[in-house]
Amino acid sequence: MSDSATIQKQSIETSNAIVDRAGVNPFRDALVDAGLLIPTGVQGLFGRSGQFERVVDGLDALITRLGADQNAEVLRFPPAMSRTEFERSEYLKGFPQLAGTVHSFCGGEHEQQRVLQCLERGEDWTEHQKPTYVVLTPAACYPVYPVIAQRGHLPEEGRIVDAFSYCFRHEPSLDPTRMQLFRMREYIRLGTAEQIQAFRSEWIERGTRMIDMLELPNSIDLANDPFFGRGGKIVARSQREQNLKFELLIPIESEDRLTACLSFNYHMDHFGLLWGIKTQDGGVAHTGCVGFGLERLTLGLFRHHGFDIEKWPQKVRDALWGNA
Amino acid sequence: MSDSATIQKQSIETSNAIVDRAGVNPFRDALVDAGLLIPTGVQGLFGRSGQFERVVDGLDALITRLGADQNAEVLRFPPAMSRTEFERSEYLKGFPQLAGTVHSFCGGEHEQQRVLQCLERGEDWTEHQKPTYVVLTPAACYPVYPVIAQRGHLPEEGRIVDAFSYCFRHEPSLDPTRMQLFRMREYIRLGTAEQIQAFRSEWIERGTRMIDMLELPNSIDLANDPFFGRGGKIVARSQREQNLKFELLIPIESEDRLTACLSFNYHMDHFGLLWGIKTQDGGVAHTGCVGFGLERLTLGLFRHHGFDIEKWPQKVRDALWGNA
Repeated sequence: MSDSATIQKQSIETSNAIVDRAGVNPFRDALVDAGLLIPTGVQGLFGRSGQFERVVDGLDALITRLGADQNAEVLRFPPAMSRTEFERSEYLKGFPQLAGTVHSFCGGEHEQQRVLQCLERGEDWTEHQKPTYVVLTPAACYPVYPVIAQRGHLPEEGRIVDAFSYCFRHEPSLDPTRMQLFRMREYIRLGTAEQIQAFRSEWIERGTRMIDMLELPNSIDLANDPFFGRGGKIVARSQREQNLKFELLIPIESEDRLTACLSFNYHMDHFGLLWGIKTQDGGVAHTGCVGFGLERLTLGLFRHHGFDIEKWPQKVRDALWGNA
Repeated sequence: MSDSATIQKQSIETSNAIVDRAGVNPFRDALVDAGLLIPTGVQGLFGRSGQFERVVDGLDALITRLGADQNAEVLRFPPAMSRTEFERSEYLKGFPQLAGTVHSFCGGEHEQQRVLQCLERGEDWTEHQKPTYVVLTPAACYPVYPVIAQRGHLPEEGRIVDAFSYCFRHEPSLDPTRMQLFRMREYIRLGTAEQIQAFRSEWIERGTRMIDMLELPNSIDLANDPFFGRGGKIVARSQREQNLKFELLIPIESEDRLTACLSFNYHMDHFGLLWGIKTQDGGVAHTGCVGFGLERLTLGLFRHHGFDIEKWPQKVRDALWGNA
């Protein structure tokens, strides 16, 4: 899930409403004061309180119930993926600045002494950190495609996969709706173009119904990913012209600023071609996904219903935690 | 949680029982064939099936019930922590080879072109990846200490924190009980030496009861962490001599090989000194923790009760998922 619509809307306002003065973000400060988010000293990296997690768990369960008829295969991956598959994904063409590669110390005892000396002197100690075969997951669906590709042709009805993962994006920010590490739940559809488009229409409707149940103001808008660089602007325009990405937007930080909380994506044959995913008749599979940003939805609920969960509207509480 | 006892036991056998022939691990292969683990092409990095996750969730809930009387504060962190706090932790003194630092692309469009060219040619493209302020979490308790330190002196009764996180250790292995990314649940005790030791004794007893409920063979043993290098051997010996680390061991890969699944740690004033955590009377706080390796426990259950959850003993199923 990405949020270029948000970025575009943000860029207009960066200098006033959102950041009152250097280093201060009122909504973030209020969340921290209430103990819902715990600062770590790194922008966009927070601990979460038990209350925050209760909301995340409730959202996760609600999404499971909304998708119960999808007969989705549950696949869960750690927050990292194979570097080889990451390289194949072409993520580095679109978003090199957001990716996080994992590096490890590969020296011996002599080099360790050097590391410890550098640390003591406050110097850069990372010289002996070398790239591993692991890259942080940029979106919950990325580890799924190579796994499905390995199983051979899709069945006639295609496949639906249910994924969930912490994801990493290197965009340090004071804005609590723009975390470096956040959780994304996804349903991923693989099949024919018609299957993907029907899936996406269905989930735009369901996603809207879900957010209505949570009594949050929302709107659907056409969007594009924040592709890197000047060339990226052309790709982004093309993505919009082809209606490939829709987002469900909720005002969170302020009333006049919208944050993408769900995204509804149609990748056409992009991932099918990259990983050689085939439909039953041997054609290149199309793919799409609906992504739920769990931190953003949680923040939206705290913004609109207050910091005390016990005082949330009963209908919202029922949607999250059932009537029991 | 670490597992030097296992390492010592393993080292004797590495050439025969565990790895039948190069690149093959029978237990791993059986788990993959059953669809419980999904290979990613990277050693120690697996996807998990819905059934696998059901067991993890059951264990997590069981640990919550076992610790209900602890009045622990729930703190949840993403799978990464502040690099500054990580550096302070002295992890690089003990385990430089296991840590994972997160690096990101910091170039412009020209450098991105170079990255894409390298990728196309199959050359190393990571030259422009620079260390971020984020390091993967090595154990679930690490992000907790700086947060507690910032709150000032501990109350008289000390504190207990409930933590849970994906953790990273760079030790690629064919052995499925030695994953690079795995989940650790912990209760962390901060207070006086007496409080920590009482907590640890209590949890050695509770942990044993928990594993008995799960009908898994187990034993408690004195252990030490796998500290790096020749100097590390001295530190490890001292850790054993001071009885700082106990582990609950379960045979998983084979009957004569034991894997540490729970660990019971007494850090003395190590973390208290590093972060300046103080008891109510101003003394340096002692700390300790009990850690539960959720992937290892799950693998132990599959090993001893079979791959079909529906056929597990009713008592075990009740312990994991309640009588309802």
